[in-house]
Order: sequence, then C-alpha cells, then structure tokens
Amino acid sequence: MAFESTAWSADLAAREQEHLDEFFDFLRIASVSALPAHQPDIDKAAEWTAARMRKAGIPEVEILQTEGKPLVWGRWHVSDNQPTALIYAHYDVQPPDPLDLWKTPPFEPTIRDGRIYARGSADDKHGVLSTILAVEALARTNGAPPINLVFFYEGEEEIGSPAVPKIIQAERERFKCDLVLSADVGQEGEDLPAIGVALKGLGGVQVDVQTSGTDLHSGMYGATVPNAVQVLVQLLATLHDADGRVAVEGFYDKVKDLTDDERKEIAAYPFKEDEFKAEAQVQEFWGEKGYTPVERMWARPTLDFNGIWGGFQGDGSKTVTPREAHAKITCRLVPNQNPNDIPGLIDKHLQKRCPPGVTLTVKPLPGKANPFAIDRDHPGLIAAGKVLNEMYGKDPLIVRSGGTVPVAEIFQSELGADMIFFGFGLPGSQVHAPNEWFRVEDLHRAAVGYCALLTELVR
Amino acid sequence: MAFESTAWSADLAAREQEHLDEFFDFLRIASVSALPAHQPDIDKAAEWTAARMRKAGIPEVEILQTEGKPLVWGRWHVSDNQPTALIYAHYDVQPPDPLDLWKTPPFEPTIRDGRIYARGSADDKHGVLSTILAVEALARTNGAPPINLVFFYEGEEEIGSPAVPKIIQAERERFKCDLVLSADVGQEGEDLPAIGVALKGLGGVQVDVQTSGTDLHSGMYGATVPNAVQVLVQLLATLHDADGRVAVEGFYDKVKDLTDDERKEIAAYPFKEDEFKAEAQVQEFWGEKGYTPVERMWARPTLDFNGIWGGFQGDGSKTVTPREAHAKITCRLVPNQNPNDIPGLIDKHLQKRCPPGVTLTVKPLPGKANPFAIDRDHPGLIAAGKVLNEMYGKDPLIVRSGGTVPVAEIFQSELGADMIFFGFGLPGSQVHAPNEWFRVEDLHRAAVGYCALLTELVR
Repeated sequence: MAFESTAWSADLAAREQEHLDEFFDFLRIASVSALPAHQPDIDKAAEWTAARMRKAGIPEVEILQTEGKPLVWGRWHVSDNQPTALIYAHYDVQPPDPLDLWKTPPFEPTIRDGRIYARGSADDKHGVLSTILAVEALARTNGAPPINLVFFYEGEEEIGSPAVPKIIQAERERFKCDLVLSADVGQEGEDLPAIGVALKGLGGVQVDVQTSGTDLHSGMYGATVPNAVQVLVQLLATLHDADGRVAVEGFYDKVKDLTDDERKEIAAYPFKEDEFKAEAQVQEFWGEKGYTPVERMWARPTLDFNGIWGGFQGDGSKTVTPREAHAKITCRLVPNQNPNDIPGLIDKHLQKRCPPGVTLTVKPLPGKANPFAIDRDHPGLIAAGKVLNEMYGKDPLIVRSGGTVPVAEIFQSELGADMIFFGFGLPGSQVHAPNEWFRVEDLHRAAVGYCALLTELVR
Repeated sequence: MAFESTAWSADLAAREQEHLDEFFDFLRIASVSALPAHQPDIDKAAEWTAARMRKAGIPEVEILQTEGKPLVWGRWHVSDNQPTALIYAHYDVQPPDPLDLWKTPPFEPTIRDGRIYARGSADDKHGVLSTILAVEALARTNGAPPINLVFFYEGEEEIGSPAVPKIIQAERERFKCDLVLSADVGQEGEDLPAIGVALKGLGGVQVDVQTSGTDLHSGMYGATVPNAVQVLVQLLATLHDADGRVAVEGFYDKVKDLTDDERKEIAAYPFKEDEFKAEAQVQEFWGEKGYTPVERMWARPTLDFNGIWGGFQGDGSKTVTPREAHAKITCRLVPNQNPNDIPGLIDKHLQKRCPPGVTLTVKPLPGKANPFAIDRDHPGLIAAGKVLNEMYGKDPLIVRSGGTVPVAEIFQSELGADMIFFGFGLPGSQVHAPNEWFRVEDLHRAAVGYCALLTELVR
C-alpha cells in the first residue's frame, strides 16, 4: 500500500482490528433519518460520532441541534498560515426495507468474502469513521493535523439535508473554510481511481389520487365509478414517451445539449456494460433514446418512480374498487434545472390529464438539491488527483455522478467553498438497497488516503 | 309488518332482543377467509353456526371439512311429498382493511342510527342467522318446517368458493334439492323490493413485474435500467382505451350486444344517479362509453384494478429504483364469457407489450365464477315475488347484479337447481368496504320473509 513509510500509516496499521470493532459498533446503530421512529438511533449515532471525535483528540466538538437532525461539528485550528478544510460525511442511513431480501440483518454487520454487509457501511458511516481515524493518526504521530480542520458530520443526508442551509446561514463563522472534502463518495473500481466533477440535482413529489370517500365493491360500483388505481396508472403512464424521454412539458427547457467534447470525455470512461448489468442484476438497459448509458447516467435528467401503492395488497383476492392510490416520484436534474420547478411542472402535467371528479394532489417531497459542478483546475482537485495517483499508480478518471449530494451545492453557494469528492466506496456496493457492503480493507485505505490528502494540502 | 297474524311472526317478535344479542356474538368472530391468519376465526364461526342450528332443532347438522374452509351442513327432511329447498348463505367475511377508516372497530358491532356497523353484518352473517331463526320459528310454532330443507352455510364465499364444487361432486346425495334459496343478497331500497335474475362472473389475475434482482439507487441506475413500477404502470395503462373499454384483445369476443328489449327493461329501473353517487361517495360517473351506468353495472363486462404496490411506500422520500411491482386485477363477466379465459387473455396482451429484459408473470387469482342467469317463469322466482309483494305492497323489480355468487352457477351446473335470490341487505351498506352496516330491524324482516317463502313453497 502507498505511504507505507509514513508514521501515520504505521500507526493506522497497528490498530486495524480495534478500528474495525469500532466500525461494527457504529454500524449497529439503526440511524435511519427517513423514519421518525428511528429518532433515538439518530441521536445515538450523533453521540457516538462526537465521542469518537473527542477520543481522537479533536479539541472542539459539539452536537448542534438544528431544525432537522443533529449536526456533529468539530474544529481543530492549528495555524493562521494554513488553509482550512471542512471534512464532510453523514452518519444517517437509508431505510433498510425490504428486510426480507437481506441475507443477514441490516444492523448486524457481518463479514463475508472480505466485505462488511450492513446498512450504512458504504453510505456513509465509513466516511465518518475513516476521516476521524485519519486525523487521530496524524495527531498521534505529529501532535496535530497539518492544516486547519472543520468537521461536519450531518444526520439528514438521506432525506436531502433540509435543515443544513439554515444552520450554515445562521452560524457562518463556525463553518468557514477554504474547501470542503467529502468522504461520501467512492472510487470507480478496485484499481480504478476517480475524481468527481459533477453531481445531479434532485426534486421530487408524492402524487395522491382520490376517487371516492370509501373503498367500494367492484361488482356493484366498478363498472361505473372511477377507480383510483386505474386513474393513477393512466396518469403516471403519460410521464414518459415511447422513447423513454420525460414527457412533462417544460422539463427539458433549461437543459443544455451535450457538446461534442463532453460526449468524447464521457465516451473515454471505460464503462463495462456486462459488469454494470451484473451488478445491477438487470438483463437489459433502458433509458432515453439517443444517449449512451453513461451519458444518461451522468448528464441527462430523469423522472424516476420510487414507489406506488393503493387498494388491496394482501394474500389472495379482494374485489374492491380502491378509493385512493399514491406514488412517489423523484427527478434527477442536470445543470440549470431547478428542483423548485419540478413539483409545479409535474402538477400542471397531471392536472391537465386528470379525469373529472377525481381529486389529484401533487406535493413536494423533502430532499431537493441543486445540480453541482466544479472547475477542473481547482487546487483541491489537483491535490486529490496527486494522492490518488500515488495510491493507485495511475491518474484518476474524471467522472460525474448521477447521485445527489445536496450539501455540495449548499457549501458552494453559502460558503463559497467547492467540494472535493474523496472517498472509497465501490460500485455495486448496494447503497440504498438490501445487502449494502463495504470492503474490510477499505476502512484503512480511506484513512490512509485522508492522511495523505491533508498533508498534501499544506500551504 | 306483513304476516303479523301468523304464529311464527309473533314468535320472532317476542325474541327480537335475544336474536340481536346472538347476532352481535356472531359478528364479533373475525372470520376473514382471505387471510390465513384468521383460520381459527373461520373455525369458530363454523362452530357457532352449527351450534345455533342444533339449538333451532335442525335434526341433522354437520361441519364438513373440505379442501378449503369448513362447510356447515344441515338437513331437515319432513315429507317425501314436499319439495326440497337448499338454503344458502356464508359465514365468512371480507378483510376489514383499511382499518383506520372504520369509525368503530369492524369486529365490535355498534348500533348507530338504527344500523349495526360491523364487518359481515350485511355480507352475509345476517343471511346465516336469519334463515336459522326462520326455521326455528316455523318449527316452534308448527313442529317442523313446511318443506324439506338442506342447509349450506359456506366459509369461503369471499375467496370465490374454490372447494365447493368438489364437495358437491363428491357427496351429491347430501345436497340434493329442487331449488336453492340464497340469503346472500339484498333489496333495492327500504321500500323497493327486487328479484335478481342474473349475476356477473368473475376471473382475476395477479401481475408481477421484476426488472432486477435488487432494489437500486435511482441516481446510479435510474437513468439506464428498467424501473419495475414504471414498467407496470405503462403496461396496466394499456388495459383500457380512452373510451373506458377493456382493450385486451378477445375480451369482448363472446359478449352479446344488449337487445332493445333488454335496454328497455334496464332503463325501467328507477336508478337515482345522485343517491348512487352519494352512497359511492364519488363526484362523477366513469365507465365504458355508449352505455348507461346501470347497463354497465348489470350487463357489461369490466376489468377492475383492485390493488397495486411496489417500491418505497413509507414516510418521506427514498430514492430507489424498485426491483419489482405488483397489481391485482379482477374482471366482471357477462353471459358466455368464461373466467378460465381471462388469465390467458391478459397474459397475452401484457407479454406482447412487455419491454425486453423484464420478467412479467400473470397468474390466476382464486375466486373465479361463471356468469349466472335464471328463467323468468321459474316457480321459485314466482313464489319469492308473491312474498315480496305481500311484504312491501308492490311487485318486486326485476334486476341483475354486477356482483358475483360463484355458487349460483355451481348449484346450477352440479345439482340442476336454480338459485332464487332472497335477501334483505340494502344498497350503500358498504359491503367489502369500511363501515359496513345492516339495519337492526332487517334481521327480523329477513326471518319473517323466509318463514313466508318456505310456507309458499309447499306443494
């Protein structure tokens, strides 16, 4: 492994089992931010994080109560002559359902084939712990980290960080920094380093259809009154055209066409169709006509159905005409699209097509995010590239992501600080899905990477 | 009330409170046939029924174990010179969900405004109890019922009586009869007697779509792999055309056009649009273009969505690309349509439109039934008309039903016995829906009606 000769690398290597045990303790906390019943677990995970930071020697550590989930904040000021990096990760996780598809329980971390299976292992508790471990190792071997640090471990990333903008606006001084390092990302493969330069934005809605005040007997009423499931299905089917394009009027208005240069850069990415399909466990690709899978993933906006429900879902048969039906939809957005426009556009499209006498409600879902992009000559981007080259023996790929990190855009607009994506998850690690995993060895790798990056950022 | 001068009417009147208490006991048993967890309640309801029959003096009573739910059977043979009527009702009930829409618990009967609110009150526990009470009153006042009786109280009507044909075929002698009297029906209004002459058939399927072996992160995969909810929604939306007709190829092939005479008979029915809408709690009608609401209800086949589910249904937002999605569909059928054809027709229609790489399964749901019709000059139909005329002071309307009584067709084909529909539920009584009700006074009315009908059938 790279950087083997450094004192901090040796220090980390000597404590690998201890760190793994700590990671397991952290993963056992079911800190699901989307489900109100898990609030005690959110609090517990925040306290665990703060305690671990104090143990690492970080002089200022506080749990800040926000309008949303608690924010674990820390600061280590070493010199007015050094830059300040804000280290970002999140301790909250996605809901684990459907539970029956997990091979081992989501909050009982289990090692199989060198992987730790647990909800939050890849997304993103390794990000929290590995950055604390890095700072601890640097401090233990040099007395203090090489640059000034602010720590920002949030607990509501998976619900779109709704309370984060407000607390940054309210206490700007506390978060002041020159750049942001996000540990909420990954590499492109075991031997494929990558640096991200763009993220999609996110905006979503819940669609509620009501046709009656009561469920009805389908024999008595089905032939002659509206059926909520049928109305919903017919409405939702109009949201895409036959070419897989989003059919919502105005959806593409602000979207720029891909330039030839961009298409070339994207085509240079060594996309392995078969591997991707195997990881996704799909037989065929699907998507907007006229674009390659990678172009769609990185640079084309989408409208995604996340869930649908209505009427009878039990065993057997129930001959009911359902009174109501519901769907959850999120859109992935590209530069210039505004998440605030999405609910209105979808509402207008659906209301126009809604049959008479049916109540249709389209309400915004929490968790919107603006699209994000960073300049290619940013000094942080260059430093990260240098470290990754050293670690992997090759230059990192320039990549974009179809995912969303709402805070990337928030830090850029509120603090003027660009985010550098520097993390060690791997593709196919089932984030947001059953059987999420993170490689055992990558907890150490991530800590080593952060030690090197912080050292590289010294002025 | 009619028949006041009879001894059995006086006998029933003297025991009204006692009978109501018994009805409440019966309604407290949550005998939901569709949900396997309620099997103990099914058994309990069967035992309750058998015990009440024995108390009424019925000499032969047995609980017959079938391949499905227990069948409560009884026989009272009085004379070889009299005809034999089989009395039919069912002790099982529909699932009570959604529970949160019930004003009082479904299995805690509660009287409000002269109505008993409880699951199964209208459909069809009053049918079981009122017929037992009638026979008991006749026996108490005359020593025995006036004609031979067979009792057939089944426990799987709400799941389509799957085991009924087999037990009838296996023990034909036990069920031998000249006609069947079904207490699983109702009148058209408080002052609107009716006799049914046709029922729709029923055939249904569950549709399962699978696009991946795992749920996926919508940002990483949503733009480029199939989404199970989207595929399902787009497929289901093809099942009807813009005129509300079923768009499944072959669906109408065997359906006869309505004759002018039929349209006139149907138009003679005093359908009150506003009352119907108020009862159904809908704003507008919907249905197949070119037919009146009553024509659609009584004489046109339908394809009804009973339920749909897939992906995330919890609070908040989860940005998942769902791996699978499901729907339950039932079709109401008219004469000459065959429920066995339905799964194949729907399967063929959907498979033809299914995108590549998607696994689509269409499997038949339990509970199929052939359409049913009876001759207008059947002696049982005439006797029932006479009794209803006496009870209501007017001739009953000739009506059809959009509902399904699978056993009507089974008795017709297996025993050569036509079914006479003779029951006392009322429109709007929320059968198959939350807050099902049955009027307090109608338990007595039903028993009186059956006493009169059995007397009228004497040779």
